[in-house]
Amino acid sequence: MTGAGSLLRLIRDGEAVTRADLVRRTGLARSTVAQRLDVLLAHQLVYEAGGSASTGGRPPTLLAFNQGAGLVLVADLGATHSRLVASDLAGVPLSEATYDMDIAEGPEVVLPWVHERFLALLKEVGRAPRDVRGIGVGVPGPVAFSRGEPVAPPIMPGWDGFSVPGWFSKHYDAPVLVDNDVNIMALGEHWTHWRDVEHLLYVKVGTGIGCGIVADRHIHRGAQGAAGDIGHIRIAGHDDVVCRCGNVGCLEAVAGGRALAHRLTQAGFEAKTSRDVVSLVRAGEPLAIQIVRDAGRHLGEVLASSVNFFNPGAIVIGGDISDAHQQLLAGVREVIFQRSLPLATGDLRIVPSRLGDRAGVIGAAIMVIEHILDPDAIDKAIEAGVAAA
Amino acid sequence: MTGAGSLLRLIRDGEAVTRADLVRRTGLARSTVAQRLDVLLAHQLVYEAGGSASTGGRPPTLLAFNQGAGLVLVADLGATHSRLVASDLAGVPLSEATYDMDIAEGPEVVLPWVHERFLALLKEVGRAPRDVRGIGVGVPGPVAFSRGEPVAPPIMPGWDGFSVPGWFSKHYDAPVLVDNDVNIMALGEHWTHWRDVEHLLYVKVGTGIGCGIVADRHIHRGAQGAAGDIGHIRIAGHDDVVCRCGNVGCLEAVAGGRALAHRLTQAGFEAKTSRDVVSLVRAGEPLAIQIVRDAGRHLGEVLASSVNFFNPGAIVIGGDISDAHQQLLAGVREVIFQRSLPLATGDLRIVPSRLGDRAGVIGAAIMVIEHILDPDAIDKAIEAGVAAA
Repeated sequence: MTGAGSLLRLIRDGEAVTRADLVRRTGLARSTVAQRLDVLLAHQLVYEAGGSASTGGRPPTLLAFNQGAGLVLVADLGATHSRLVASDLAGVPLSEATYDMDIAEGPEVVLPWVHERFLALLKEVGRAPRDVRGIGVGVPGPVAFSRGEPVAPPIMPGWDGFSVPGWFSKHYDAPVLVDNDVNIMALGEHWTHWRDVEHLLYVKVGTGIGCGIVADRHIHRGAQGAAGDIGHIRIAGHDDVVCRCGNVGCLEAVAGGRALAHRLTQAGFEAKTSRDVVSLVRAGEPLAIQIVRDAGRHLGEVLASSVNFFNPGAIVIGGDISDAHQQLLAGVREVIFQRSLPLATGDLRIVPSRLGDRAGVIGAAIMVIEHILDPDAIDKAIEAGVAAA
Repeated sequence: MTGAGSLLRLIRDGEAVTRADLVRRTGLARSTVAQRLDVLLAHQLVYEAGGSASTGGRPPTLLAFNQGAGLVLVADLGATHSRLVASDLAGVPLSEATYDMDIAEGPEVVLPWVHERFLALLKEVGRAPRDVRGIGVGVPGPVAFSRGEPVAPPIMPGWDGFSVPGWFSKHYDAPVLVDNDVNIMALGEHWTHWRDVEHLLYVKVGTGIGCGIVADRHIHRGAQGAAGDIGHIRIAGHDDVVCRCGNVGCLEAVAGGRALAHRLTQAGFEAKTSRDVVSLVRAGEPLAIQIVRDAGRHLGEVLASSVNFFNPGAIVIGGDISDAHQQLLAGVREVIFQRSLPLATGDLRIVPSRLGDRAGVIGAAIMVIEHILDPDAIDKAIEAGVAAA
């Protein structure tokens, strides 16, 4: 039970800095600790950092987690933009790049493209593919997380059931995790700014609308990886609005960026994307301000139900439209505080995203690092490595 | 890390039946295992069950969890009924009783009454208060779980902020856990019939409407213990219906047992409670059938949103009105399958409760047992016991 992986966890968390700490914390025999530590040292996951000041005798050797023992590569793939990062094992980005790309070109075009840019990032930081300990990919659609396969993603033709880990296995000997983009954004915001909150919702309001759910400090993906798909919850009084999903009155069809741009276009404005809508709001255009505020109210209706159902400690609003967050959040807050139960809203924080466009890559890196440095995973990797030697 | 509690967990789960198993599974030294096992044996949490057939030599002693090492007392307190159980440490009820009572009389009346009946249950099974290892209480309102205090419960005057554990501490030297009644019902159904499902909703449709949420096999209580309060989610087209919470169009005010009874009364029927409504449905009264089916549709609207948001593997419907479950579930299924995303409904089970009125006490017993036999709790209890000796 208390394998090398658990020792690494104690060292990473700063709960053990000497061999004596490890013995005391685990109850393992001194010889067992030494043996497991040798393995961690051999794998360069831990290094010895010289002696500490002591009350006499030889100072004990200090142990530290080697966050440079390898790196992780992550890609946050949006519908039309993407962001790629190479980070160390503490989640610190070492190299980063953003690109325009089109996810609808399918995995056989997009993944080779990602791989090429991953190689460029590696070169930039002077590392090789063999240094890669894990890969994380976020995509704008539902994912069967355990298999790393998108499942019936509406805006990702060609990706349904495609094994992303299978594709990368040709190039890297490392685990590949794939998740819905709002999930990794939720994880990024939570890890960076909200670690004291147990339950958090991250809502992305862009062309579409989706929600990442942190329950008990972990991503809640649901039975089919479809959790958080709030964009297709019906809102009252809009049964005349047909959604791309085939239903009527969906939140996304009423309050998503595309819907808002369409309404502005009909009123004679030049507005194709969410960003155009935000530009008009920033320019002080009253109609744009009004429709974003209304969108906030509609989002608030759905979130009021989610607050009653889930009782989160914080709701973080991100995505392109959230750049007009004063107007959007005003509408959201108005309806949530009107409709949700006082007990559930008394301490509820409703705030704009602080990581902005970088929430996804930061969350993806954390997801991969937590996976590869999980005590059981470490023990298995070591076992496999030893068997191969 | 691998204390006596972890050894007990391995023995309880049947993963270790000999000392050799424990050494192999934990990596602890044989002497350490022996020492920790001695503590478990001394506390009578484990007993030795004689030798097994062996291939030669002395057969190894078998180890077994002593589920009679103590018992737990639980009370599922409803608005007007309650059920009390004394169970062993495996959750098997040893003695059980139901009563009419009125929770609105307040804790200073209800808790002495519960205590008296607990003593009667103990007497019935020939045990004393000192044999009680834990107490569990379910109440029909939100609870600050960590403190065991009801929080602003609408139908429980006098209970707001009242420390239930504090009251019981005068009589028992054992932990007291208090939870919302639908949470323990959800746990009872999950533990008994749905352990292979990770995420489950238990919906109670009685006088009021509430939901217990199992996320990743654990009760999700939310930031203030208010999670699952779906009774006050607004449903479209009923802004003329005022709810007892002060808002309009709440699910409970439209589809709860009281609302249905009221509608039948207005139509000239004799119907005061949820059970009267069910009787009329069973008697084949068309109007009663129609309003229960409609109630199912309204509940389905709210649950369709919860399915999109949470993506559960199963939804279990319980409570008084669910005794008319064919009609109720027909309405629920109709709307969920129409409104929720195909990915989230493909494998979704929507079923009536199988434990019925006993879900609460079974769940409460499991909640208490998992708490007191949690490895860390065992280690702490042993430490405290040793310190006192």
